[in-house]
Amino acid sequence: MRIAELSRRAEVPIPTIKFYIREGMLPRGERSSATQARYGQTHLDRLTLIATLQKAGLTLPVIAQALRTMDSTPGDSPEFMAVAVGALPVRDYATSPEQTARAETVLRALVEQRGWDVSSDAPVWQAAVRAIAGLVALWPEPVTPDRMAVYAEVAERLAAVELPDGWNPSISPAEALRYAVLGTVLFEPVILSLRRLAHVDRGAKLRARRGSTS
Amino acid sequence: MRIAELSRRAEVPIPTIKFYIREGMLPRGERSSATQARYGQTHLDRLTLIATLQKAGLTLPVIAQALRTMDSTPGDSPEFMAVAVGALPVRDYATSPEQTARAETVLRALVEQRGWDVSSDAPVWQAAVRAIAGLVALWPEPVTPDRMAVYAEVAERLAAVELPDGWNPSISPAEALRYAVLGTVLFEPVILSLRRLAHVDRGAKLRARRGSTS
Repeated sequence: MRIAELSRRAEVPIPTIKFYIREGMLPRGERSSATQARYGQTHLDRLTLIATLQKAGLTLPVIAQALRTMDSTPGDSPEFMAVAVGALPVRDYATSPEQTARAETVLRALVEQRGWDVSSDAPVWQAAVRAIAGLVALWPEPVTPDRMAVYAEVAERLAAVELPDGWNPSISPAEALRYAVLGTVLFEPVILSLRRLAHVDRGAKLRARRGSTS
Repeated sequence: MRIAELSRRAEVPIPTIKFYIREGMLPRGERSSATQARYGQTHLDRLTLIATLQKAGLTLPVIAQALRTMDSTPGDSPEFMAVAVGALPVRDYATSPEQTARAETVLRALVEQRGWDVSSDAPVWQAAVRAIAGLVALWPEPVTPDRMAVYAEVAERLAAVELPDGWNPSISPAEALRYAVLGTVLFEPVILSLRRLAHVDRGAKLRARRGSTS
């Protein structure tokens, strides 16, 4: 199909399509003449994927990075999902080099305790170090591997459910990316808001128990 | 002490102190003459608390709301923490009224299954509905109470560890607020980044297993 039809079917304006091509987010069409190119299902699928990721709240630079990862990683590897997801931002706090070093020590001990097969080169590693460094900087109690163990345990439990043993390795890279990114950004607010809701429940129960014994 | 000393000791400029008083975030000093007021430890503590919450990345309106909640809630109630924490924002996605209604149904069923003592009036309830509505809108698989159960289970496990049976009910309201807000904002990135790290580990292990059987 020509670009006009691609634009109509994908509901994406032509200048936006050209922008995606310039940015390397969408492959060029097959040149059919000096001024025209032909586009196919691949282009339509890719535009749909970009639209989904945008709806999920990802910015264009993050989408571009995720697509680059997808295009340069073997698609049947679940590790691929982790690479794409590692590019997503996690909120940071200002911390000192000492606090970061302490966080790195805690994370290394934790990862060793749990027997996790993760490299400190992974972008998610740095995100975890920064998150723990925020705790070291501001949390009023000591931040130790033992204190962190329950969070690692819970993370393991979620990962085992989210990437089950029979996790379908034959889905396309685009499907894998869609699952990875949506699985991260859509489930994160669910996890956090259910934790807050569980705190309300826990508070009510502790209060009721205190009321009944006093 | 006079305002100049308060400013020096808290490391907060006088105009900022006056702003906090106007906004109701800091109590007025005790008037000692027509133009002067006296400030004490309470004021110093409150300024330190505001600074900590700011470092944790909270905006002034959120801090003001949390302080209002603190000042109007009995301080020995763990429920108070949940109220303050409910004011913190959770990321949202655009959803339709039908998707929101579906999310509300799923959440009600989930809360009933788990026996949670939470009211749908709580601000955290709405946050959970919006988070689940994001899933309903964009996740490619059906969103059912059973599918959500593992997240509720994990949330319960965290709440039980974070608000243990012997949770100290005699800490001051300011301490309670500090724990509640920091416990929310500092631990959230830890939870999310460890989940991402656990995905990397899980991916590596699934891949190794596939490698060894093929």
